Amino acid sequence: MPSSPSAPASSIDHFWAVIPAGGAGTRLWPLSRSSAPKFLHDLTGRGRTLLQETQDRLAPLVEDRFVVVTGTAHRAAVLEQLAEVAPGRVLAEPAPRDSMAAIGLAAAVLEREDPDAVMGSFAADHVIPDPEAFAAAVRIAAEVARDDWLVTLGIEPAFPSSAFGYIHLGEELPGHPAATHVREFVEKPSVRTATEYVATGRYRWNAGMFVVRPTVLLDLLGQWHPEFADALRAIAADPDRLDELWPSLPKIALDHAVAEPAADAGRVACVPSSFHWDDIGDFDSLAALVGDDAETVAVLGDAGLVRAVDTSGLVLPGSGRVVAVVGLDDVVVVDTPDALLVTTRARAQDVKQIVEGLKAEGRAGLT
Amino acid sequence: MPSSPSAPASSIDHFWAVIPAGGAGTRLWPLSRSSAPKFLHDLTGRGRTLLQETQDRLAPLVEDRFVVVTGTAHRAAVLEQLAEVAPGRVLAEPAPRDSMAAIGLAAAVLEREDPDAVMGSFAADHVIPDPEAFAAAVRIAAEVARDDWLVTLGIEPAFPSSAFGYIHLGEELPGHPAATHVREFVEKPSVRTATEYVATGRYRWNAGMFVVRPTVLLDLLGQWHPEFADALRAIAADPDRLDELWPSLPKIALDHAVAEPAADAGRVACVPSSFHWDDIGDFDSLAALVGDDAETVAVLGDAGLVRAVDTSGLVLPGSGRVVAVVGLDDVVVVDTPDALLVTTRARAQDVKQIVEGLKAEGRAGLT
Repeated sequence: MPSSPSAPASSIDHFWAVIPAGGAGTRLWPLSRSSAPKFLHDLTGRGRTLLQETQDRLAPLVEDRFVVVTGTAHRAAVLEQLAEVAPGRVLAEPAPRDSMAAIGLAAAVLEREDPDAVMGSFAADHVIPDPEAFAAAVRIAAEVARDDWLVTLGIEPAFPSSAFGYIHLGEELPGHPAATHVREFVEKPSVRTATEYVATGRYRWNAGMFVVRPTVLLDLLGQWHPEFADALRAIAADPDRLDELWPSLPKIALDHAVAEPAADAGRVACVPSSFHWDDIGDFDSLAALVGDDAETVAVLGDAGLVRAVDTSGLVLPGSGRVVAVVGLDDVVVVDTPDALLVTTRARAQDVKQIVEGLKAEGRAGLT
Repeated sequence: MPSSPSAPASSIDHFWAVIPAGGAGTRLWPLSRSSAPKFLHDLTGRGRTLLQETQDRLAPLVEDRFVVVTGTAHRAAVLEQLAEVAPGRVLAEPAPRDSMAAIGLAAAVLEREDPDAVMGSFAADHVIPDPEAFAAAVRIAAEVARDDWLVTLGIEPAFPSSAFGYIHLGEELPGHPAATHVREFVEKPSVRTATEYVATGRYRWNAGMFVVRPTVLLDLLGQWHPEFADALRAIAADPDRLDELWPSLPKIALDHAVAEPAADAGRVACVPSSFHWDDIGDFDSLAALVGDDAETVAVLGDAGLVRAVDTSGLVLPGSGRVVAVVGLDDVVVVDTPDALLVTTRARAQDVKQIVEGLKAEGRAGLT
């Protein structure tokens, strides 16, 4: 059957989406909790949770080739939200072991299941309003990854953020005009340094999106952490060994375990991309996402519950109660059934102090 | 038995406390509601409601000689809170008819019950931290009232408030060196005018506290509103006529119906007093009462529920939920089971806009 110009693009052969679904989102307390982390929430008001939107964005590229890695406590909720993903493809971590273990486990499983696999790892709690621009970048990244590169997507900085790490771009990649070498990954800079980075045009935000052949990823890991790679492959070969081997895995991010040393070794490529991306790190970025209007209050949830007079900022009515706000600028009000937060967009980062305090008091049930 | 210096002063012979318990306290929404007005709440954090504190303050002066006038809807709650007051002494208004009807009804009842009665009318929702200074002023007022004056207590202004009416003092009252004539009652002035008033030393806040012989009050009323006085005396003579006569009573404040014209007629005296008094008109004055500290947050209720970082103002945790506030100055957070208010002390007066809006939307159940 001939394809028409309006037909959706087909999926990418042997391309798998790996979704690490972890992280509590402490700075989004009390909306995000250990018991219900932010990826389980509809933070955009579009009727889909962040996890579901991640699936929606990837499904055209992978059809049903998903592997989700999440905590034991969240596996049931993930399965409920992703009804089309086969239960066997939702892997449960016995305990949090950071991103290298989670993504590495998926890689080890895929290495056995599909020798031709290319995998893309995309966090469950990011927002990308333009899925087509995202898909176009992923298609390029998958092509580059087939040539055994560890490929990262580099987000064009919208502003000189000090909240993200940066990717320092190198020369154009031979044979792949839309990709570059990665000179290095740099940690979260000061705003001043970030401003210098952005001015050069050669730095991109590191959104933690990696596209790679599973075997390439595990072999790279094996160069610097051979026992780690061996353990992941052993679990994939015999899933019954998960509980035995998992506790021994290092708690380390993929960036530190593989991406940074691999960049030093000249093995990492970047597809610079210009789609809008947000990891919704706090209520300030959520407010910007929901409606960045200095004059009015944005409501995430049932606007019929909110009464605002001379107020700007963000209100999340989440307990069914009426929320009335009078005379506050850039306020953040988050109303949940068992906890209420009132702060400002400028102080949104400091919400973690509350969470740390509650944990220290033994009120972890609230966090 | 000889009285010792530390024995409590005896009550005032034939002195009766009349407590009009009405008024919704709109500017204290969502704490104060039509269904649970502010006098039913413990607003000082001392474990007694404003109504109970009013009783506590007056009991040494009247023993059990109380008459409470309240709305039908609140009679049961009043009886529960004032367990020592005989049910027959809690009069229920079939509908709100302002203060002249409420206090006048009590006067008509007392005129029949105790020909030697002197009554003092004191609202159920005021705060007076020094009950002994209050009692001393009332004792003087009762003596003056026996000489057939309509006596008011004049509160020394703590600041040039534009929220209260003022009493303009005249000459000293012959035979009563601690009392003066009242030249006139003046309506709430501008701050500028109030400043001029206060500078003269001859103006006092009108707290609506009147001490008077019941017959004097009703006879004064009869001079300007003869049918009103007749109707009140008819109800007292035959309580079965309450429902028939009550709807015909004018909706008018005692100040307008009697006090102002009586002052013009030279019939009103004032006992200038210096005790601290507050009608807790809004959350700003409540914040000042609970703890006026620019550096920290005051909590009215269970402080264990409140987590504050870099915050000043007032928090009322009233739903059992944790209330976390980060980085706000002079904030007011009022948490109740079905409605939440977030505002500032400076905007506390504007809470009434929310209440009016809810009523206009037909959400009167929330107000």
